Amino acid sequence: MKVKHLTDVKEEIVTKANSTKTTVRWLITKDDGAKGFATRMFEIQPGGQVGLHNHAEDHQIFVLQGKCQLIDEKGNKVELKNGDVIYIPPKEKHGFENHGDETFAFICVIPYLK
Amino acid sequence: MKVKHLTDVKEEIVTKANSTKTTVRWLITKDDGAKGFATRMFEIQPGGQVGLHNHAEDHQIFVLQGKCQLIDEKGNKVELKNGDVIYIPPKEKHGFENHGDETFAFICVIPYLK
Repeated sequence: MKVKHLTDVKEEIVTKANSTKTTVRWLITKDDGAKGFATRMFEIQPGGQVGLHNHAEDHQIFVLQGKCQLIDEKGNKVELKNGDVIYIPPKEKHGFENHGDETFAFICVIPYLK
Repeated sequence: MKVKHLTDVKEEIVTKANSTKTTVRWLITKDDGAKGFATRMFEIQPGGQVGLHNHAEDHQIFVLQGKCQLIDEKGNKVELKNGDVIYIPPKEKHGFENHGDETFAFICVIPYLK
Protein backbone atom coordinates (compact mmCIF):
# COMPACT_ATOMS: atom_id res chain seq x y z
CA MET A 1 0.00 0.00 0.00
CA LYS A 2 0.99 3.61 -0.43
CA VAL A 3 0.46 6.28 2.22
CA LYS A 4 1.13 9.96 1.64
CA HIS A 5 -0.21 13.32 2.76
CA LEU A 6 -2.07 15.57 0.35
CA THR A 7 0.66 18.18 0.77
CA ASP A 8 3.20 15.63 -0.59
CA VAL A 9 1.40 15.85 -3.94
CA LYS A 10 2.23 18.62 -6.41
CA GLU A 11 -0.34 21.39 -6.62
CA GLU A 12 -1.04 22.33 -10.25
CA ILE A 13 -2.82 25.41 -11.57
CA VAL A 14 -5.99 24.59 -13.50
CA THR A 15 -6.62 26.63 -16.66
CA LYS A 16 -8.97 24.31 -18.57
CA ALA A 17 -12.66 25.24 -18.71
CA ASN A 18 -11.89 28.93 -18.15
CA SER A 19 -10.83 28.13 -14.60
CA THR A 20 -9.37 30.90 -12.43
CA LYS A 21 -7.83 30.80 -8.95
CA THR A 22 -8.13 27.02 -9.03
CA THR A 23 -5.62 24.26 -8.32
CA VAL A 24 -5.66 20.46 -8.45
CA ARG A 25 -3.63 17.73 -6.76
CA TRP A 26 -3.81 14.30 -8.40
CA LEU A 27 -3.74 12.37 -5.10
CA ILE A 28 -4.02 8.78 -6.38
CA THR A 29 -3.34 7.88 -10.02
CA LYS A 30 -2.03 5.19 -12.36
CA ASP A 31 1.43 6.01 -11.00
CA ASP A 32 0.30 4.54 -7.67
CA GLY A 33 -1.01 1.41 -9.37
CA ALA A 34 -4.63 2.51 -9.60
CA LYS A 35 -6.22 1.18 -12.78
CA GLY A 36 -9.86 2.16 -12.85
CA PHE A 37 -10.06 5.69 -11.51
CA ALA A 38 -8.16 8.58 -9.96
CA THR A 39 -8.71 10.68 -6.84
CA ARG A 40 -8.02 14.41 -7.14
CA MET A 41 -8.43 17.34 -4.74
CA PHE A 42 -9.44 20.71 -6.13
CA GLU A 43 -9.22 24.06 -4.37
CA ILE A 44 -10.97 27.19 -5.64
CA GLN A 45 -9.97 30.44 -4.00
CA PRO A 46 -12.51 33.21 -3.24
CA GLY A 47 -13.50 34.85 -6.52
CA GLY A 48 -12.33 31.83 -8.51
CA GLN A 49 -14.25 29.54 -10.80
CA VAL A 50 -14.28 26.45 -12.97
CA GLY A 51 -16.28 27.43 -16.03
CA LEU A 52 -19.21 25.42 -17.38
CA HIS A 53 -17.85 22.42 -19.27
CA ASN A 54 -18.48 18.73 -19.92
CA HIS A 55 -16.67 15.53 -20.88
CA ALA A 56 -17.18 11.79 -21.19
CA GLU A 57 -16.03 11.05 -17.62
CA ASP A 58 -18.50 11.13 -14.76
CA HIS A 59 -17.56 12.67 -11.41
CA GLN A 60 -17.99 11.62 -7.79
CA ILE A 61 -17.46 14.63 -5.54
CA PHE A 62 -17.19 15.12 -1.78
CA VAL A 63 -17.00 18.67 -0.38
CA LEU A 64 -14.27 19.11 2.24
CA GLN A 65 -14.36 22.80 3.06
CA GLY A 66 -15.94 26.15 2.22
CA LYS A 67 -18.97 27.09 0.18
CA CYS A 68 -19.47 27.30 -3.55
CA GLN A 69 -22.10 27.58 -6.23
CA LEU A 70 -22.39 24.53 -8.46
CA ILE A 71 -23.73 25.46 -11.90
CA ASP A 72 -25.79 22.80 -13.66
CA GLU A 73 -26.37 22.30 -17.38
CA LYS A 74 -29.42 24.58 -17.33
CA GLY A 75 -27.46 27.36 -15.63
CA ASN A 76 -29.17 26.76 -12.29
CA LYS A 77 -27.03 27.35 -9.22
CA VAL A 78 -26.89 25.03 -6.21
CA GLU A 79 -25.19 26.12 -2.98
CA LEU A 80 -22.58 23.58 -1.80
CA LYS A 81 -21.17 23.15 1.70
CA ASN A 82 -18.95 20.82 3.71
CA GLY A 83 -20.19 17.21 3.60
CA ASP A 84 -22.17 17.59 0.39
CA VAL A 85 -21.88 14.77 -2.11
CA ILE A 86 -22.42 15.21 -5.85
CA TYR A 87 -22.75 12.76 -8.71
CA ILE A 88 -22.30 14.27 -12.18
CA PRO A 89 -23.11 11.83 -15.03
CA PRO A 90 -21.01 11.58 -18.22
CA LYS A 91 -21.35 14.49 -20.66
CA GLU A 92 -23.44 16.62 -18.27
CA LYS A 93 -22.31 20.25 -18.10
CA HIS A 94 -21.12 21.58 -14.75
CA GLY A 95 -19.14 24.47 -13.29
CA PHE A 96 -18.21 26.01 -9.94
CA GLU A 97 -18.08 29.60 -8.67
CA ASN A 98 -16.65 30.55 -5.30
CA HIS A 99 -18.39 33.76 -4.20
CA GLY A 100 -17.48 33.12 -0.54
CA ASP A 101 -14.58 34.37 1.55
CA GLU A 102 -12.78 31.06 2.14
CA THR A 103 -11.15 28.41 -0.01
CA PHE A 104 -13.57 25.85 -1.40
CA ALA A 105 -12.00 22.38 -1.40
CA PHE A 106 -13.39 19.11 -2.72
CA ILE A 107 -12.43 15.56 -3.60
CA CYS A 108 -13.30 14.57 -7.19
CA VAL A 109 -12.95 10.98 -8.39
CA ILE A 110 -12.82 10.42 -12.14
CA PRO A 111 -12.59 7.19 -14.18
CA TYR A 112 -9.80 6.24 -16.55
CA LEU A 113 -11.87 5.56 -19.66
CA LYS A 114 -10.91 2.51 -21.68
CA MET B 1 -26.63 15.62 -11.43
CA LYS B 2 -27.48 14.55 -7.93
CA VAL B 3 -26.63 16.61 -4.85
CA LYS B 4 -27.13 15.37 -1.29
CA HIS B 5 -25.56 15.75 2.11
CA LEU B 6 -23.74 12.86 3.76
CA THR B 7 -26.31 12.91 6.56
CA ASP B 8 -29.05 12.20 3.98
CA VAL B 9 -27.46 8.78 3.44
CA LYS B 10 -28.31 5.86 5.73
CA GLU B 11 -25.61 5.00 8.26
CA GLU B 12 -25.09 1.23 8.45
CA ILE B 13 -23.24 -0.75 11.11
CA VAL B 14 -20.25 -2.65 9.74
CA THR B 15 -19.71 -6.16 11.08
CA LYS B 16 -17.61 -7.71 8.30
CA ALA B 17 -13.88 -8.25 8.95
CA ASN B 18 -14.43 -8.35 12.73
CA SER B 19 -15.32 -4.67 12.70
CA THR B 20 -16.48 -2.98 15.89
CA LYS B 21 -17.81 0.52 16.56
CA THR B 22 -17.70 1.16 12.81
CA THR B 23 -20.31 2.51 10.42
CA VAL B 24 -20.48 3.12 6.68
CA ARG B 25 -22.52 5.41 4.45
CA TRP B 26 -22.62 4.45 0.76
CA LEU B 27 -22.60 8.05 -0.50
CA ILE B 28 -22.59 7.48 -4.29
CA THR B 29 -23.56 4.13 -5.82
CA LYS B 30 -25.15 2.41 -8.80
CA ASP B 31 -28.46 3.77 -7.52
CA ASP B 32 -27.19 7.25 -8.40
CA GLY B 33 -26.17 6.12 -11.89
CA ALA B 34 -22.50 5.49 -11.09
CA LYS B 35 -21.21 2.53 -13.08
CA GLY B 36 -17.52 2.08 -12.38
CA PHE B 37 -17.05 2.72 -8.68
CA ALA B 38 -18.71 3.79 -5.43
CA THR B 39 -17.85 6.42 -2.82
CA ARG B 40 -18.35 5.44 0.82
CA MET B 41 -17.65 7.20 4.12
CA PHE B 42 -16.54 5.13 7.11
CA GLU B 43 -16.48 6.23 10.74
CA ILE B 44 -14.64 4.29 13.44
CA GLN B 45 -15.38 5.33 17.01
CA PRO B 46 -12.63 5.42 19.69
CA GLY B 47 -11.78 1.84 20.61
CA GLY B 48 -13.22 0.51 17.37
CA GLN B 49 -11.57 -1.38 14.55
CA VAL B 50 -11.85 -2.93 11.13
CA GLY B 51 -10.01 -6.24 11.38
CA LEU B 52 -7.29 -7.31 8.98
CA HIS B 53 -8.92 -8.53 5.75
CA ASN B 54 -8.51 -8.49 1.98
CA HIS B 55 -10.56 -8.69 -1.22
CA ALA B 56 -10.26 -8.32 -4.98
CA GLU B 57 -11.22 -4.63 -4.96
CA ASP B 58 -8.56 -1.97 -4.50
CA HIS B 59 -9.21 1.08 -2.30
CA GLN B 60 -8.59 4.79 -2.68
CA ILE B 61 -8.83 6.44 0.73
CA PHE B 62 -8.84 10.06 1.94
CA VAL B 63 -8.75 10.76 5.70
CA LEU B 64 -11.28 13.38 6.80
CA GLN B 65 -10.94 13.48 10.57
CA GLY B 66 -9.24 11.94 13.58
CA LYS B 67 -6.31 9.59 13.94
CA CYS B 68 -6.02 5.86 13.41
CA GLN B 69 -3.57 3.05 13.00
CA LEU B 70 -3.57 1.43 9.58
CA ILE B 71 -2.41 -2.19 9.74
CA ASP B 72 -0.63 -3.51 6.67
CA GLU B 73 -0.30 -7.11 5.45
CA LYS B 74 2.86 -7.65 7.52
CA GLY B 75 1.15 -6.41 10.67
CA ASN B 76 3.04 -3.10 10.60
CA LYS B 77 1.13 -0.09 11.90
CA VAL B 78 1.07 3.30 10.19
CA GLU B 79 -0.36 6.36 11.97
CA LEU B 80 -3.01 8.12 9.89
CA LYS B 81 -4.22 11.71 10.23
CA ASN B 82 -6.42 14.26 8.47
CA GLY B 83 -5.40 14.77 4.82
CA ASP B 84 -3.62 11.45 4.46
CA VAL B 85 -4.20 9.55 1.23
CA ILE B 86 -3.89 5.78 0.92
CA TYR B 87 -3.86 3.43 -2.05
CA ILE B 88 -4.44 -0.24 -1.18
CA PRO B 89 -3.94 -2.61 -4.16
CA PRO B 90 -6.26 -5.56 -4.89
CA LYS B 91 -5.95 -8.54 -2.50
CA GLU B 92 -3.57 -6.72 -0.10
CA LYS B 93 -4.50 -7.20 3.56
CA HIS B 94 -5.41 -4.09 5.58
CA GLY B 95 -7.12 -3.13 8.81
CA PHE B 96 -7.76 -0.09 11.01
CA GLU B 97 -7.63 0.47 14.78
CA ASN B 98 -8.78 3.69 16.43
CA HIS B 99 -6.82 4.05 19.67
CA GLY B 100 -7.53 7.81 19.80
CA ASP B 101 -10.21 9.77 21.60
CA GLU B 102 -12.13 11.08 18.59
CA THR B 103 -14.04 9.58 15.70
CA PHE B 104 -11.84 8.57 12.76
CA ALA B 105 -13.59 9.32 9.46
CA PHE B 106 -12.48 8.58 5.93
CA ILE B 107 -13.67 8.44 2.35
CA CYS B 108 -13.08 5.08 0.64
CA VAL B 109 -13.69 4.61 -3.09
CA ILE B 110 -14.10 1.04 -4.34
CA PRO B 111 -14.63 -0.33 -7.87
CA TYR B 112 -17.62 -2.33 -9.06
CA LEU B 113 -15.81 -5.35 -10.46
CA LYS B 114 -17.09 -6.70 -13.77
